[in-house]
Amino acid sequence: MPFTLDEMPDRLRKQLAFIIEIDKLKSILRRNDLIHESRKENDAEHSWHLAVMAVLLHEYASAPNLDLLRVLKMILIHDVVEIDAGDSFLYAVDGAPEKERKERAAADRIFALLPPDQRNEMRALWDEFEAGVTPEAEFAKAMDRLQPLLLNYCTEGRDWKEHHITLDKPLGLGPNVIARSSEVLADYARKLLHSAAELGYFHNPGDPVKE
Amino acid sequence: MPFTLDEMPDRLRKQLAFIIEIDKLKSILRRNDLIHESRKENDAEHSWHLAVMAVLLHEYASAPNLDLLRVLKMILIHDVVEIDAGDSFLYAVDGAPEKERKERAAADRIFALLPPDQRNEMRALWDEFEAGVTPEAEFAKAMDRLQPLLLNYCTEGRDWKEHHITLDKPLGLGPNVIARSSEVLADYARKLLHSAAELGYFHNPGDPVKE
Repeated sequence: MPFTLDEMPDRLRKQLAFIIEIDKLKSILRRNDLIHESRKENDAEHSWHLAVMAVLLHEYASAPNLDLLRVLKMILIHDVVEIDAGDSFLYAVDGAPEKERKERAAADRIFALLPPDQRNEMRALWDEFEAGVTPEAEFAKAMDRLQPLLLNYCTEGRDWKEHHITLDKPLGLGPNVIARSSEVLADYARKLLHSAAELGYFHNPGDPVKE
Repeated sequence: MPFTLDEMPDRLRKQLAFIIEIDKLKSILRRNDLIHESRKENDAEHSWHLAVMAVLLHEYASAPNLDLLRVLKMILIHDVVEIDAGDSFLYAVDGAPEKERKERAAADRIFALLPPDQRNEMRALWDEFEAGVTPEAEFAKAMDRLQPLLLNYCTEGRDWKEHHITLDKPLGLGPNVIARSSEVLADYARKLLHSAAELGYFHNPGDPVKE
């Protein structure tokens, strides 16, 4: 490994191996564009954006005493599996079991770069995020669903139009997931989507809307 | 503001205004390249990388009971002023007072988008990072100095060569700042820089080394 020096503590060597490996997340592109620049967002900057959102919006989580530190850790590493498995498009209809298999294999490989205690902690956080049943995971997932809605709305639906997305898809997969953690944010997301539909930000807005 | 809806709580409107504004940080480019892709790193993905590093490396901070949550909040917002002020190059010799003035004006404008309590909290965190005297700020700054050394080392000094950097500059501004928070990481940084010099990763490695 190129950053390895003689007489280096083995624990630090492993931690840095992980830190250098995840630099690759900066090259994994998502489907949506940035708001202020016409290029695709990558997973690293997306994770940063979710983390800031969590800091500012966790007051809306309905669960009392949300552990914000655990939310942030979860958000920071929730996408690292995409280094191997690639970006997974929320509205893809096929290949869910294959995607899950690939992501688990990626988690096995990537978290194993860390010393055992941190491998276990990071893997547990990732598993918790994927399962999405603790208040912290539900809130982290709410951020992950809300952020692309904002980016899409602010680009007048650039990604929705490009990928032929109709209102029913985000309406079925956004507000209801957000509502598990926060009714206030789910309500905002629902209204944002209906406003987007009125403004013609979705694919073929003349089609009948399925709700 | 494009994401604003009728009947929206004023507090949420302000929080989202900030969240949308800082999307611009994804377009502020730093001097160094990514490790695995030949393009400049942006401030948003840089901030994400520092945050993960802090999660994994805070055990090396010499201060007892480091508040990791405050470290993470500080790291997540430490560069937002560069949306207005631009990336500040660590080794720039001129313009420090002008840079400071620009960054303070940027902090005034950008944090003021938030509701007053969060504006005050985020501004205090940014001021704390800039002052760099609390254990949390010292550790956050240590991450900010260590990360570009790693990226530069792993790209065989691409940025150091491109910007005509000789060993004395990072040696004078890296390990000593890192040492305020962590001797282990400062020692690693020092050895990494000397190894880089031996491998010819700096500008004009035949020049005498000033230490």
